[in-house]
Parts: sequence; C-alpha cells; structure tokens
Amino acid sequence: MAEQEMKSVKGGVTAAKGFVANAISCGIKKPTATRLDLALVYSELPTTSAGTFTTNRVRAACVRVSQSHLKRGDIRAVVANSGNANACTGAPGVAVARKECAIVAKQLGLEPREVAVCSTGVIGLPMPMVRIEPRLPELCSKLSAKKGHDVASAIITSDTREKEVAVEITVNGKPVRIGSCCKGAGMISPCMATMICLITTDAAVPREHLDATVHEGVEHSFNRITIDGDMSTNDTCLVMANGASGVKLAPGRPGWKKFTAALHHVMMEQAKHIVQDGERVTKFVTVRVKGAPTPQEAKRVAEGVAKSSLVKSSWNGGDPNWGRIIHAVGYSGTRVREEKVDIDIAGLPACRGGMQTTTKSDDLRDRVQAREFEVLINLNMGKEEYVVYTTDLSPEYVDFNRSEYAYWNQAKQDGLTH
Amino acid sequence: MAEQEMKSVKGGVTAAKGFVANAISCGIKKPTATRLDLALVYSELPTTSAGTFTTNRVRAACVRVSQSHLKRGDIRAVVANSGNANACTGAPGVAVARKECAIVAKQLGLEPREVAVCSTGVIGLPMPMVRIEPRLPELCSKLSAKKGHDVASAIITSDTREKEVAVEITVNGKPVRIGSCCKGAGMISPCMATMICLITTDAAVPREHLDATVHEGVEHSFNRITIDGDMSTNDTCLVMANGASGVKLAPGRPGWKKFTAALHHVMMEQAKHIVQDGERVTKFVTVRVKGAPTPQEAKRVAEGVAKSSLVKSSWNGGDPNWGRIIHAVGYSGTRVREEKVDIDIAGLPACRGGMQTTTKSDDLRDRVQAREFEVLINLNMGKEEYVVYTTDLSPEYVDFNRSEYAYWNQAKQDGLTH
Repeated sequence: MAEQEMKSVKGGVTAAKGFVANAISCGIKKPTATRLDLALVYSELPTTSAGTFTTNRVRAACVRVSQSHLKRGDIRAVVANSGNANACTGAPGVAVARKECAIVAKQLGLEPREVAVCSTGVIGLPMPMVRIEPRLPELCSKLSAKKGHDVASAIITSDTREKEVAVEITVNGKPVRIGSCCKGAGMISPCMATMICLITTDAAVPREHLDATVHEGVEHSFNRITIDGDMSTNDTCLVMANGASGVKLAPGRPGWKKFTAALHHVMMEQAKHIVQDGERVTKFVTVRVKGAPTPQEAKRVAEGVAKSSLVKSSWNGGDPNWGRIIHAVGYSGTRVREEKVDIDIAGLPACRGGMQTTTKSDDLRDRVQAREFEVLINLNMGKEEYVVYTTDLSPEYVDFNRSEYAYWNQAKQDGLTH
Repeated sequence: MAEQEMKSVKGGVTAAKGFVANAISCGIKKPTATRLDLALVYSELPTTSAGTFTTNRVRAACVRVSQSHLKRGDIRAVVANSGNANACTGAPGVAVARKECAIVAKQLGLEPREVAVCSTGVIGLPMPMVRIEPRLPELCSKLSAKKGHDVASAIITSDTREKEVAVEITVNGKPVRIGSCCKGAGMISPCMATMICLITTDAAVPREHLDATVHEGVEHSFNRITIDGDMSTNDTCLVMANGASGVKLAPGRPGWKKFTAALHHVMMEQAKHIVQDGERVTKFVTVRVKGAPTPQEAKRVAEGVAKSSLVKSSWNGGDPNWGRIIHAVGYSGTRVREEKVDIDIAGLPACRGGMQTTTKSDDLRDRVQAREFEVLINLNMGKEEYVVYTTDLSPEYVDFNRSEYAYWNQAKQDGLTH
C-alpha cells in the first residue's frame, strides 16, 4: 500500500470514532512505569468483534470467560487489569471474571456476554477483588475519547513503554481509523508480560469477515514472534469494529483491501513493538527461512533457530556464529540436507552448501553489531517460506527473571489475596 | 544391585583389561584446563562394539564415518580430538576423518573400518590436519594401560573437570570391569562441549546383546539430560567389549543382569556428571512427570519444563515458582487438565488441582536453595512416567556463550585451517 494512503494518528485505542475509555489505579500492580492497573474500553455503538487467544492448555480464567462471551456474540466493552493474571485460580477465578463482566455490563447497560475481560500478572494467586470490585462503578463512569493512552499504561507490566499504534485510511472520501494498544515483553511470567492486544476500528465489518482477517493478521504477526519461547496462559488479541465512520466494508467492496492491509499493518507493528521491548534484550532479529519442502518445515526451522539458547546468546555477543545457526536447523525436526543449506547474515553470505564462505569474518561481525538484522536460511529443498521475529538472550534477561519471590510473597501477605 | 556387588575402581577408560591409550597435545584446542587434545583408545584384543550417535540432521563428518564403520563391523580403536568438531566441513571433512582412521589403522595393524573417530569443538572450520597428521604415529606408538586419565583430559573443552567412571563386578569369581570417560557441559556449541562418551569393558558380549543393552542404557541416561536444549551435531557414545576378563556374558548366562546394571550405572553416572558440570549453571534439577496418558506425553511435559527459559531462570534465583512450571506444562503440547495437575517441589506440595496449596512460601523457597532438588509433576491422567535431569539457566551461561568470535577468528587466521 502506498504510504500516502495510510497515515499514523494519535489516540491509541480511542483513535477510532465512537470508542471511549478509562483507566484507574487500584493497587494491584507492582509499582513500575505506571501505577494505572485497571482499564476499560467501550464502544458507544454496537460492534462486530473477533479475537484470538492462547493455545496453552493451561488457560487463565479471564481467557475462558472472554472466549465463551465472544462465542455467544459480539464484544462491546473490555475490562483489563495488570498485576494478577487470574490464571491457575480454579473455579473461584472464573467466578471472579464473570462477576467483573456482570458489574461492568450493569453499569454500561449491556449484557454480561458483551463484556470481555483481560488480566496479566502473577499466576496462581487469587484475584484481589476486594480492591477491584468497589472501583468498577468509577471506572465505568468517567469514560472519555481522550483516555486511550491511559489504557495503554494500565495494561503494561515489565514493558518499558506503552505500545500504541493507530492509523487512518480513506475510503470513498471518508476517514476510517484503526486504533490499538498492546502489552508484552516476555511471552509469559508471573508478575510480568503476557501478551494482550486491543484493537478498535470505526469501520463497519461483518463479523465473519472481521474474524477471518483478524486470524490471518494474527498468524502473520503475533504468531511469528518469540522472545523466550514461553507461551503465555493469558495471550489475547481482541478487535472491535463499530461502524462509527459510516464506512461499511466487506470483501469485494471498495476499500476492503486497504482496510485489511491497514489492520495487518497495525498488528505487525504491535508484534514488532513487543519484540523490540523484549525483557532486557538488545537485538531485534528477523529469522527468514526459504526453500523448505512444506510450510510446516519452514516454520519448524525458523522457530528452532529463534528459540535456541546458544544462537540467541551468540547474537547477544554480536557474534556472527553461523555454525550455531546450522546446528539448530539440523535438530529442528525437518528434512534438511546439510550440503544444500545456505545462510546469509545481515545480507552477507556466511554459509554455502553447508560450509563456510570466503566472506571476511570481520565483515560478518560488523553487521551483527547492529541492533536489527536478518538471518536468511535457504534449505534449497522446496518453495515454502516462513519468518519469525525474535531477540537475543541476555544475561540481564536471566537476572531479571531470576526471582519474583519477594514480590509474590509480599502480594500474598498483603491481603491482596482472599 | 547391592553395593558390595559393584565397586568403583580407578583408571577411567583403561580400567578394563586389554585396553591401552595415549593422548598428546597438537595445539588444536583453545588452552583450557588441559592442552591435551588428541587421544587414542585401543583394544589389544578383538572386540564387539555398539554405539549411539546424534540424531541431528546436520551430522559431523566424524559421526558419519564412525557410523559407517560401526555398521560394517566392530570397532577396536577410537581416535578423538577436541578443538575442532569437523562439522559442516563437507566432503573434505569426511575425507579427513577417513584419512585419520586409515593412518591409525595402518599403525596398529587394523582395517580402517575398525577405527572410529570422534571430534568436538568449533563447527564450520576445516580440521587442522596439518597439525594432526604428523603426530598420529607418535600417538599410536606410546600406548599404555595407565593413560586412561589422559584421554579424559584430551576430550574435554568447556568442561571444568575430567569425567571418568569405572566399576568392577564379579562374575563366577572373576573380576569384570567397565571403564569410561565422557565430555560435555553444553549440549553443543562451536569451540565447546558436544557430548562424547567412550566405554570399555573386558567382558565378552555378543554384539547383538551389547547393542541392545547400550541402546537401553542410553535411552535412560544420555537421552534424558538437557542443559540448554541444544542438540549437538557430534554426540557419540561408543562401547567396546574385548573379553580380556575371560568372562563371557549374554542374556540368560550368569552375571548378565549384574553386568547390564553396572553398564547402565556407568552411563547414568556419566550423564549426571555432564549435567552437574553444565556451563556456568548452579543447580541439578530432576524433573519427574507421573500420571501421563502416554509415555510420549510424559516426555513432552518433562522436556517442556526442563527447557523453559523462564522456569530455568527462576531456579537460578532459588524461586519456587510453580506458576511458571504449570505454564510450561500447559504449552508442552500434551493432553493436560489444569484442574488435575499436582506439583511437588523438593518434596513439598506446591500446587494441587491446578491451584496453590497452603504450604508456606518460605518453606518452599528454603528447599530450592539447595544445589539439587526434584520437581514432581503429576498430571493425574494416566500411569505413564518420564524423568529428565537438567539445570538452571544462569546469567553466566549466557555471558559464557556470548561470543567465541575472537577464538574462532584467531583459529582461522592462525593457519589452523587449510
């Protein structure tokens, strides 16, 4: 899409017309960049909606409730908190998530099933409803179209910054906007980042088509990133479309391609934001696999390389170590013929036919000093491709994740749990 | 087996009768604990032999050659070097490995196919045959039954110590010995540890039975350890039996069970030595899974937990973080019902039915301060079990593996490659 056809706008999740929001501080999040920890996004108009959720067999209570609500109809409001993931909290956790939806629905004049709930934070501690429940009426009463940024602040945990992307396209002379906010810096950890992305649009999109394009977008963005290989119990991406722009979109109608391209752009930008803000990491690495016999094998090779502790450690050291890359290619469980494997690092040939090239070592090393670079692996075994966006592994990542015990134990003692 | 039936003896790989060895320094290994870097183990008597090799699709030239030789007959001599893995070296690498076998065979009066070759070290650089070839006659000429320890020294790289286990059992009043040496501290990395284990015995064991019991032993020892999840291109376990004790063993004959138990004991001890010497790590953790519906699922859960960066980081911090453990259980790709999952940490119940227990946090934390502890996960979904031995992940591991560039580039410049 030509750049002039899509422009960035401010406002995050409330950039799209007809969406309002609020965020408050309830004292459930460890003091970090921000103390805001409870947020609400609400569409003043009816919506269509779509979403994707973690495939972890251990699913947070909020994920179960939101999935069930989305299955039964469209979502018009999302309540989200940070500081507690409401995961591994059993039947009481589900009851709490349902209660949150019910209270918010009553305040907004909706059905409970029109409300979704997202949580992120500690796993295994009961939700501190004693701190949340009394504040829900206030949360619902001071909604504003100017509080998108507060929502972005309220959902982050180990993230170092808010993650907002909003764009505007023009369809038949009318502006159509897509707004979003997102959180995530490690795939999952208690007290820390689990991925959540909330996307709003003022286009009108029939649910089936919204659903299809959201799934396609997630497949090419959020499903292609990895920081530490650890899949969250809480991953959620929710999209609401309310038609406030007056523009109706569907496959075959004017602007559909422009809209899906813009939506996928927003998702990809947010996915990259998460990787770029990976916990204590220093590199953004694109691992691109070509020439695989099947798409599944292309994926396995890309993920194998992107998750290898040894490969990631070498990137941290700025070491153009193609030997570690090919060893991870070899154990990724795919059909690989060593003598056919080519590897380029940051545009320079590092390996041809499974052996070293004449590229100067210093030239390779200079290229991987950069904060961002691409590793291109051609298996020369077929035509399938796959790409994964990832990071290095740093000593600081391990140090950062060594112990949440003090916080966790404090939260327990604190009476945050009950 | 009662302890008095098996005693530890000294001598490593030459503890068993009729095995002699030598090791020299050729200047192919980065100066580490030892400069010895080329070793030979030779049986003065004919042998039967068995072996297992990496399943990485990218296999070192030495692995290819040794596999082919073992397929064609029995191995009577093993030449091993550290400093260069002879991996990703193409057809020239295979030619070099064959040449080493041929020269050693000629010196010892053997067929080339009776010689196996093991290499460990940098991936992707040609073998420095200019340094190895002229020294092979010397290597073969000064063999001694007292040089087992030198072999253990010559094969280690990032290991902090030699790894030798030798035991003696008595069968029909005659002593039977099993000797071994082993190397490994990271699953693989250029310049560093890839696992090699050489085992000798003076029992006479028909090849088919030796092969079966070696595979069974490897399955329960080396195949159940992980440090960093990175499978080597060079992993090799070779066993030679020469009958010098005068004791003939086979299933159904006296002493067979005692012998296989002793052999498996040696393998398990060596596997644990590797984990305990894991690169810059601080914990030895047994991950035991029970109650799985199938053995494959028990394995996936155990490996999923043992390979999770977040779980391993928490162990490094002495954090009894069962939430991270159950999240890894959930994404391991098995049938899991969250509400049935029980987790014990170091003997204390940490999670019951997918939720926290009343065990005091401080008690859990105290237990994981220990250098060794067990994590027991009961899925309560069946009767299958699996166990994996693993380590924490430390900031020092990442730092240690950040860059081998300086060494690698030096090796290239050095004229070690040609």
